[in-house]
Amino acid sequence: MNGGMLRTIHGPADLHALDATQLPALCEEIRRTLVDYGHRHGGHIGSNLGMIEATVALHRVFDSPRDRIVFDVSHQSYVHKMLTGRADAYLDPALADTVTGFTNPDESEHDQFVLGHTGTSISLACGLAKMRDMAGGHEHVIAVIGDGSLSSAIAFEGLNNAAAQGGNLIIVVNDNEMSIAEDQGGMYASLARLRASGGTAEPNLFTAFGLDYRYVEDGNDVTALVAAFTEVRDTDHPVVVHIHTCKGLGLPASDDIAQPVDESVATSGRCEANHWINPDSAAHRPLGARKYYGQLAMAQLESRFDHEPGLVVISPATPGSNGITRAFRDRAGKHYVDTGITEEHAVAFASGIARAGGRPVLATSATFFQRTFDQLQQELSLNHTPATLLDFGGGLSGSDNTHSGAFDIAMFGNIPGLTCLAPTSQTMFLDMLAWSTSSANQGPVVIRVPGDTILNAERTGLLPCDRKQTVAQPVTAASQPVSDTPSTISDDQPWSRYHIVHAGSRVAILALGNELPLGLRVITTLANHTADGTNASVHGSSELAIDATLIDPQQFSTLDATTLASLAERHELVVTLEDGQLEGGWGEKVTAWYANHCDPTIAALRVLNFGATKEFTDRVPLTELNERYGLTVDQIIARIRENLAN
Amino acid sequence: MNGGMLRTIHGPADLHALDATQLPALCEEIRRTLVDYGHRHGGHIGSNLGMIEATVALHRVFDSPRDRIVFDVSHQSYVHKMLTGRADAYLDPALADTVTGFTNPDESEHDQFVLGHTGTSISLACGLAKMRDMAGGHEHVIAVIGDGSLSSAIAFEGLNNAAAQGGNLIIVVNDNEMSIAEDQGGMYASLARLRASGGTAEPNLFTAFGLDYRYVEDGNDVTALVAAFTEVRDTDHPVVVHIHTCKGLGLPASDDIAQPVDESVATSGRCEANHWINPDSAAHRPLGARKYYGQLAMAQLESRFDHEPGLVVISPATPGSNGITRAFRDRAGKHYVDTGITEEHAVAFASGIARAGGRPVLATSATFFQRTFDQLQQELSLNHTPATLLDFGGGLSGSDNTHSGAFDIAMFGNIPGLTCLAPTSQTMFLDMLAWSTSSANQGPVVIRVPGDTILNAERTGLLPCDRKQTVAQPVTAASQPVSDTPSTISDDQPWSRYHIVHAGSRVAILALGNELPLGLRVITTLANHTADGTNASVHGSSELAIDATLIDPQQFSTLDATTLASLAERHELVVTLEDGQLEGGWGEKVTAWYANHCDPTIAALRVLNFGATKEFTDRVPLTELNERYGLTVDQIIARIRENLAN
Repeated sequence: MNGGMLRTIHGPADLHALDATQLPALCEEIRRTLVDYGHRHGGHIGSNLGMIEATVALHRVFDSPRDRIVFDVSHQSYVHKMLTGRADAYLDPALADTVTGFTNPDESEHDQFVLGHTGTSISLACGLAKMRDMAGGHEHVIAVIGDGSLSSAIAFEGLNNAAAQGGNLIIVVNDNEMSIAEDQGGMYASLARLRASGGTAEPNLFTAFGLDYRYVEDGNDVTALVAAFTEVRDTDHPVVVHIHTCKGLGLPASDDIAQPVDESVATSGRCEANHWINPDSAAHRPLGARKYYGQLAMAQLESRFDHEPGLVVISPATPGSNGITRAFRDRAGKHYVDTGITEEHAVAFASGIARAGGRPVLATSATFFQRTFDQLQQELSLNHTPATLLDFGGGLSGSDNTHSGAFDIAMFGNIPGLTCLAPTSQTMFLDMLAWSTSSANQGPVVIRVPGDTILNAERTGLLPCDRKQTVAQPVTAASQPVSDTPSTISDDQPWSRYHIVHAGSRVAILALGNELPLGLRVITTLANHTADGTNASVHGSSELAIDATLIDPQQFSTLDATTLASLAERHELVVTLEDGQLEGGWGEKVTAWYANHCDPTIAALRVLNFGATKEFTDRVPLTELNERYGLTVDQIIARIRENLAN
Repeated sequence: MNGGMLRTIHGPADLHALDATQLPALCEEIRRTLVDYGHRHGGHIGSNLGMIEATVALHRVFDSPRDRIVFDVSHQSYVHKMLTGRADAYLDPALADTVTGFTNPDESEHDQFVLGHTGTSISLACGLAKMRDMAGGHEHVIAVIGDGSLSSAIAFEGLNNAAAQGGNLIIVVNDNEMSIAEDQGGMYASLARLRASGGTAEPNLFTAFGLDYRYVEDGNDVTALVAAFTEVRDTDHPVVVHIHTCKGLGLPASDDIAQPVDESVATSGRCEANHWINPDSAAHRPLGARKYYGQLAMAQLESRFDHEPGLVVISPATPGSNGITRAFRDRAGKHYVDTGITEEHAVAFASGIARAGGRPVLATSATFFQRTFDQLQQELSLNHTPATLLDFGGGLSGSDNTHSGAFDIAMFGNIPGLTCLAPTSQTMFLDMLAWSTSSANQGPVVIRVPGDTILNAERTGLLPCDRKQTVAQPVTAASQPVSDTPSTISDDQPWSRYHIVHAGSRVAILALGNELPLGLRVITTLANHTADGTNASVHGSSELAIDATLIDPQQFSTLDATTLASLAERHELVVTLEDGQLEGGWGEKVTAWYANHCDPTIAALRVLNFGATKEFTDRVPLTELNERYGLTVDQIIARIRENLAN
């Protein structure tokens, strides 16, 4: 039976009370529990399987929460959660949602921080230790960081400062010989030599930073780990305990759940497969937008590799999530670079390639691009180098609070000189990629990869299919039925002008990126209102059909002043829709543009903005978020009716 | 005579043509030129004096611009500029403004990038080298990075990736044994051992990253450097050339220009004094706002150190610029931590201290906080840890394009859960600091340190002196004359409610932070218009006096809905003023708030926004920027009149 011993562990005290000889059995029980949980629920099973013994040993030797353990990224904290009163969440399928996939102080006093981005644990632990020393405390402070995380910028800053700070601080380096995909970088040869030599080889990266050092070869031997942690427990100076673990230990290579859902991903390595496992229920589902559009992008680029030496795809460690399959990477050769978990380097690296004449394409998640804010501004935009950034996972979703895509428009859209494109179809996406990586483009471009709302609309045929545009034939003023006014903005890229999907009157819906399908549903509903007896009777006689205009802005870096001004002719109300934070986002720029216009007719146009509140959300389903933010057909139409009535 | 030989150098070819024996004399001539230039013009003289011989040797051995030299931060590129056709800028006082203090491709084909932030040179060079290898080129790529810059996060990512990449890449580590202030961190002991051992000591940080390594003890011996660079010139793999130089070589310790202008800064060390030298003409001027308010802040904190062990001041390497004097640091002891150039670590470190119960205060420039965007969001705001950030140098200024403060409001103000305060007086600033570091505050706070417009207004008595507020007595609805409506927002901090400086009618000026003095001038001019015969006659009879309202928002993280709504009663026009980028900034939020209001009376209120265009600016004088952006009394009043007339 699973969970026999585990169910008796309600906190570290129960673990301390066990006989040492019981620990291996407890670890095996946890291992079985994790594998079952992975089948049902998915998650970062691989890293947790590797960390079972180390986590048991940490809680055996130290006294949490008095002693403070900081898990880097914290996706490997499942075992920690099991040992600190939350085992039921992993044993009982009905309780799975009672815990997040990351540490969270709101969930338990044993969780020091909410963490989901890599490399910060050492710096955070330095802060905890500093305060302890200022207050004259005696608790122990432990940072647990993987070899993959170790390649991220801030981790090095932490290593460098830890030694200078002094005092009790234990840095457990969980070396499982892999990052999300393979480890990348020169230091991994050093780590390999340390492993091969039992921790004695020079040069030693950790001692080079001034840190004391211990090595534990069998990082899945709980007895050895207890001994090692006990030895360093009361150290009066920072010490690295380098433990060699096996990611995914206990998960057969042939286990179905270790197979990627995406069949085009080769199954030779356990790397990505063991990093994040999809639940069994996800098998055989069609690809989601990230992988679908990502694979299309890679296919387009790959077809050009032979003739364009400067076309280089850069992925800071998370290729699989973005459709950069192992098969593609193998074929791409020198045209593909995994820089490891190093978003900042990746952006500067891309800028360097572009400065020398290349056309780099850097792909990662919206939430991870946040780490590169300064490089986006300084190395890329200020230098106006033609790199293309593929922004995956931008927009609202039911993600946890550490991986939200709600903030990308407000981040990218306010950087001078950065062209920000928001394609609303596969064709437009690939056209934009072809243009941004061509010699026609002379500056940095971010393309917000379409999300599932677009993919679903394309699959169901919801979106009109006449929206194809080619780079050779950008939208021109003449093709836009609403206005004959010539463009007053410089057409520095083919999507500078907004695309009028449907020209109507009274109300203009400007639906950015992923919200275009919502905009289409809104104008369809408005147009059909009189034909809909129920609606007409509920809302009364004012509920006349409205033939509203629908506009696809296609980008969020500049405003199309010509189109915006032209709307004043036949419209009373402009509505902006965006699947991101309103504050600092795109719609507010539209509102301010009208408000500040010198022509009183144009300035008088009412504007309503729909988007997300400035807040963090944690695993709130998208439908609930849309309801909360008024991003539903009913709520949008209700606000439109209210404002037209006035 | 200065510049005899230097004037004959119009590019690297002229340097190549010199006899090797002439190089030391050229170096001495450059040294004299730099010292004279520093007296007249100021600048990063110390680092350039240390880099004279290395720069001459680089241009002697390599063939720029075919070979690409990337100067990290690029403040040490003066000698490079002299050798690449720009010597006149340093020799002729009238031509000093023809060059920036940093490299810039618009200035010369020998400058690879615009750079002003640390640590990115290796990553950029990796990109240049990658593209060379993709294209089958044979040019050499060189990154030049100081030991101080080496502590910044991205530099480590670069080191780690350089070795993995392979190919010709030369990383010159300019080790002058100091950062902007002292070097900080465990790796500097390793560097010291390398210096002491002639480059042979283990552990070697560079070889630990997988890089080849050379050491040059006398980094100011041009002959030795030419030999070292020649030896590695055609390397087929990345190699570090570690050169030991002397910052400020040739600048007597007793030289007047090495003395800090601020008399309260001790003069014992050459560190800050030699980092940035003020021109002689700056001597004996009163303190600017950064140092003035910074010193006040430190004095307040210092008075509490004895009783508050958790009060810790953190400076990532630039204490002197922000009034954190050497004398203060010496007295502060453990209450002060210089983390080196590690902004990201500094923010996570602060969050750790705060989580453990401390009240950390992190001080740096607006432009450098950009590097911490992800830590601000994840480690700080998502974790809601009560750290205080002192944001120095925020706002418009005549700075170069790599150090602009125009983007901070748009960055900080859009992060959920981060309280953003914009004090407009010394008293308010210190009250805010006292509150944010007290137990009354439970979350992260950024305080935008007042700029020179505020300091000048305080010195000249322009601002009304009844604006003092204390933490114990926050602004309440009852104290606000415009509206009796009770506050509908939660007063989560004493400055949530806007402060009504003057209650008038028709026009309400909301002047954020540093623009409050401008707002005061606007309402004064509007009020005096009829008394001013010239104005009345010029503008005609419509130019009646207006008793406009002036509001000090005090913060830019939330909107005071009560006050904003109340303005609809007696006002036709709301005007926002901010000294930062409009797009994504604060005023657009005010505009959108009104536009989206459900009460048609409130929604009908016109709003005009004044602030900066989304653009990079390079050494444009502030008065010119204000003129460009309409941030002058005349332009603001003209737009107000236009819109009232409508």
